[in-house]
Amino acid sequence: MISVALLGAGRIGALHGRNIVASRRARFAAIADAFPATADALGQELNVPVRGVDEILDDRSIQAVIICSPTDTHAELIERAAAAGKAVFCEKPVDLSAQRIRDCLQKVQASGATVMIGFNRRFDPHFAELQQRLHAGEIGDVELVTILSRDPAPPPVSYIERSGGLFRDMMIHDFDMARFLLGEEPLEVHAVGSALVDPAIGAAGDVDTAAVLLKTASGRICQISNSRRATYGYDQRIEVHGAKGMLRAQNLHSSAVEHADGSGFRSAPVMDFFLERYTPAYRRELDAFFDCIENGTEPNPSGEDGLRAQILADAATKSAQTGQAQRIDP
Amino acid sequence: MISVALLGAGRIGALHGRNIVASRRARFAAIADAFPATADALGQELNVPVRGVDEILDDRSIQAVIICSPTDTHAELIERAAAAGKAVFCEKPVDLSAQRIRDCLQKVQASGATVMIGFNRRFDPHFAELQQRLHAGEIGDVELVTILSRDPAPPPVSYIERSGGLFRDMMIHDFDMARFLLGEEPLEVHAVGSALVDPAIGAAGDVDTAAVLLKTASGRICQISNSRRATYGYDQRIEVHGAKGMLRAQNLHSSAVEHADGSGFRSAPVMDFFLERYTPAYRRELDAFFDCIENGTEPNPSGEDGLRAQILADAATKSAQTGQAQRIDP
Amino acid sequence: MISVALLGAGRIGALHGRNIVASRRARFAAIADAFPATADALGQELNVPVRGVDEILDDRSIQAVIICSPTDTHAELIERAAAAGKAVFCEKPVDLSAQRIRDCLQKVQASGATVMIGFNRRFDPHFAELQQRLHAGEIGDVELVTILSRDPAPPPVSYIERSGGLFRDMMIHDFDMARFLLGEEPLEVHAVGSALVDPAIGAAGDVDTAAVLLKTASGRICQISNSRRATYGYDQRIEVHGAKGMLRAQNLHSSAVEHADGSGFRSAPVMDFFLERYTPAYRRELDAFFDCIENGTEPNPSGEDGLRAQILADAATKSAQTGQAQRIDP
Amino acid sequence: MISVALLGAGRIGALHGRNIVASRRARFAAIADAFPATADALGQELNVPVRGVDEILDDRSIQAVIICSPTDTHAELIERAAAAGKAVFCEKPVDLSAQRIRDCLQKVQASGATVMIGFNRRFDPHFAELQQRLHAGEIGDVELVTILSRDPAPPPVSYIERSGGLFRDMMIHDFDMARFLLGEEPLEVHAVGSALVDPAIGAAGDVDTAAVLLKTASGRICQISNSRRATYGYDQRIEVHGAKGMLRAQNLHSSAVEHADGSGFRSAPVMDFFLERYTPAYRRELDAFFDCIENGTEPNPSGEDGLRAQILADAATKSAQTGQAQRIDP
Repeated sequence: MISVALLGAGRIGALHGRNIVASRRARFAAIADAFPATADALGQELNVPVRGVDEILDDRSIQAVIICSPTDTHAELIERAAAAGKAVFCEKPVDLSAQRIRDCLQKVQASGATVMIGFNRRFDPHFAELQQRLHAGEIGDVELVTILSRDPAPPPVSYIERSGGLFRDMMIHDFDMARFLLGEEPLEVHAVGSALVDPAIGAAGDVDTAAVLLKTASGRICQISNSRRATYGYDQRIEVHGAKGMLRAQNLHSSAVEHADGSGFRSAPVMDFFLERYTPAYRRELDAFFDCIENGTEPNPSGEDGLRAQILADAATKSAQTGQAQRIDP
Repeated sequence: MISVALLGAGRIGALHGRNIVASRRARFAAIADAFPATADALGQELNVPVRGVDEILDDRSIQAVIICSPTDTHAELIERAAAAGKAVFCEKPVDLSAQRIRDCLQKVQASGATVMIGFNRRFDPHFAELQQRLHAGEIGDVELVTILSRDPAPPPVSYIERSGGLFRDMMIHDFDMARFLLGEEPLEVHAVGSALVDPAIGAAGDVDTAAVLLKTASGRICQISNSRRATYGYDQRIEVHGAKGMLRAQNLHSSAVEHADGSGFRSAPVMDFFLERYTPAYRRELDAFFDCIENGTEPNPSGEDGLRAQILADAATKSAQTGQAQRIDP
Repeated sequence: MISVALLGAGRIGALHGRNIVASRRARFAAIADAFPATADALGQELNVPVRGVDEILDDRSIQAVIICSPTDTHAELIERAAAAGKAVFCEKPVDLSAQRIRDCLQKVQASGATVMIGFNRRFDPHFAELQQRLHAGEIGDVELVTILSRDPAPPPVSYIERSGGLFRDMMIHDFDMARFLLGEEPLEVHAVGSALVDPAIGAAGDVDTAAVLLKTASGRICQISNSRRATYGYDQRIEVHGAKGMLRAQNLHSSAVEHADGSGFRSAPVMDFFLERYTPAYRRELDAFFDCIENGTEPNPSGEDGLRAQILADAATKSAQTGQAQRIDP
Repeated sequence: MISVALLGAGRIGALHGRNIVASRRARFAAIADAFPATADALGQELNVPVRGVDEILDDRSIQAVIICSPTDTHAELIERAAAAGKAVFCEKPVDLSAQRIRDCLQKVQASGATVMIGFNRRFDPHFAELQQRLHAGEIGDVELVTILSRDPAPPPVSYIERSGGLFRDMMIHDFDMARFLLGEEPLEVHAVGSALVDPAIGAAGDVDTAAVLLKTASGRICQISNSRRATYGYDQRIEVHGAKGMLRAQNLHSSAVEHADGSGFRSAPVMDFFLERYTPAYRRELDAFFDCIENGTEPNPSGEDGLRAQILADAATKSAQTGQAQRIDP
């Protein structure tokens, strides 16, 4: 049994907390949150003691921490937990500054600690199957990857303002997925973005509709599109073209019932909430973290994966702002 | 070039007539119809001379006739045309009486004439592909065949009254398809039918919604369902289960455009008119008839196929009326 | 918290047992099984005490029992549990003899006890949605219902021999579904069956491939087909045609990944194990039982529903054996 | 009856020629081709006289010409035919030089002649339906357009060398479609391209796999991807996201037959030849040209549409070569 503590008990922290309880591999040792009421509510629901961060890090019986606190606390908590000898799982992003991430990873590397970053989509059973079949050569060399992500509805503008912008907050998942599928680092980034869903998002200096082109050294191409709005559910699709064929992961619909009449055929929207859509992904992600701890294997996605995605997000942000393509230093 | 005459210039006759004109294998020699105005209209449209039936049958330069006249004239015209040495293509059914069909086929057999019956669905590219893959053993031995046919809307009651009833008028196509796919003769027939679409059809002694079960000597099973109404287009589906897998032919939709919003995904109805749905089938059917004439091969479907389908339709009619299963004499 | 005991700890008992543990509405009081090792294994897994049936029935703190013992013990356990004042959930079927079921229900009715029968498919979210939309009039009056159920592979012949035959063991679910959807009692039953999958099933006097036609008083028609084999997964489909349109529930596939190359498009088989396919259905079923206990509502499906399905299964068995349609006494 | 001549009797010329013959609105007056054998072959097949270009342009009884000659002759033939008072339909592109197109259109405008450009995809029934529903406001304001075109296999390198490159030869259709759907002019063009299918294409200075981002003045975004290879048929898809929903046109498959077994479900490739895929589009395109002539309406797509698409193709070519985004002068 791995002894685990949770740092941050908000929406995503509560999700991971419930998965820790459901897992047969872990003992849920403690919950911490800067807001005592938040920590207490989850502690009571899951019957887990609430403790302070310092106390948790000092407790040598606790082997691992799961960091779900606000983004601006991630890098420091990773450093402190690694220094305290804990295995670390941290929600994306490590930080909004690539330089800060580099510094953090350097310190962590010195400590030899396990650090895994929460790009949950790699663990979605459908996307994981697609990537494995791709990796097994089922469609030959990758030529063109298309990733589409659309949220059901935009977050509040107050969230947008602190988010780092769409490319760092939302498309970061797609940059990680692009790297996961391309099998090569993108070196050229083109981005365009617009505030079409809500002018207030534009007024806050961000975009809500965006598309990106990536190109790797060997010439592989990736298209990504994002929108903060999808009227028909949480749209999550991948399509990969290779030399010998195509692999794609279609959306998951919320019902298998179909209706037909003179106006045609009607079927259900796609699952519309990310916690529901990615329920199995979050469980498999936690299992992968536990595998690293038990088997001493390399975490995947690693801190380096977190850094690489952030660099692409920074480049895309700059490209969309300047109207010019950006080069990535390999 | 095969010299062809058309006997009967109504809706289905006009269809065959236009296909004769479009074919590069035939010379369209003459059109006859009991209603001179009907014959003249088609003759003018297609630039083909209108002549009498006797004259056509006496003309030794005419090699083949296509019979599209009313059902009660079919058997006699087949006999006369065969006696005159013509190759004969006759629209289904040969006659509403199985005994009359037997007599007709006996006379025709004596003459050695080519007689092909117009079960157009065997020539639909999708159904033909399915049958060929079945025949090639792609799913092993056939176990269960399901055939579904739904017309967009019922015909006038005046038509129903002279039609011989749903099983002989509409399901006859499905009985032929069942035999085409089962590869064995059905020996047991169960049928139920109801007038649910239009009470006037019930008042006329017929049904508009019906289902049938067939069982062959080796135990293969076929389900057929029919309705005189399909709100979403002309529904035509086949599904065959075999020892090693399943083959099915899905409907053809009238458009590839799909719409999605909060109410879900919407796509187009299926093609809703049999002449449109089976356009390629009618062309391929005519080609198959020309192949028989040019190559001397056996017509398929043959007059015997017409008789067998009629016997099944008679049995189903009786089963639905009596509530009892019927045996077919093998 | 409802205090619940489990009678029978085999495969289906273990499933219900795990769902009791996961439910926040119940306290899992005891497990009983004629085989002590079976009871102990589940008791240890779920941390629930193993007790004898008599002891459980005598314990007045236990409010409800879930009966998952062998079929030939169902009726007596229902009677005893009802007499002891317990609410009863019993897996299908109540008994293989309709007369025995009638006797049982009569006794139970006298006791006033809650008795719910385990037709799990009514609680499948897709089928339940379909039925609710049907009931709400979305496609008008029901005209034709088609139900298709195919198991991935046949059970051992030893199981077949004690099963009561395909119509009572497997199609019983579809008879219940037919009644659920038709909204009327079937009065006419036609059945055909064959042993095509495994001759040993035929030698044991049973069939493995079967189809049924049902007709109600108002003329509604239902088609059912069953096979003990589906090469592409556990096939579970429903299609209902009404006066104003069609509603159907499609299969659930085991993956959303699709592959395409020169041979065409390939997608995953359908989910192939009933416990996986119906995981949410079993949870919702248990919740419905708890609702009856907490709210005093009528159980649905009731013991009467169990009897009605059994009568249809008996009639279908006789029809398949005699080759004759059977009438149901309304 | 409109009197029409065909200038250029190659593959696409023959296609238009056969459609002229099939049309009831036109009289096919003459065929010209620089290669007499090519002209003669088509003339004999269609029973149309072969004549010289000068003779055709001088013949005042000929109202319209359809230009299907090599690209480098288009602009001059358009100018000469317009000067001779003919209505002109010219296959895309008008010329590989935008400046040459501007000059040509200026001369033509002076003459007042009807000039329509052959962007056939606007007339595909599915794409036309999509655009009409978009235009009718079915999904609100357009936000993101995705266009995907993949040819079954690359043309010979000898063709590639004279083609102007993928963006001008192949993606030109998609640039026109983008403008057709966006309802605004793109002002910013990002392109990436690679030679992944065939290194010989790269050696010839061209790419075979490419993707483009377009952005309009109001911020609408368009993604286009092209490949010279699609293993599973001629891939032609459009997806448009708007403020209120999504509209897309799916591929057309070559068969409606589906197979299932333990390896999953298999369906047919998509139609794999552009002449087959766009058969109805070419017929409707010709009808639209005849409508312009008969009703005096503005041709659509016009010469201006040809110029605009060419400017986008030029910008994309430069962007892919330089790695920098390009601005379009509005």
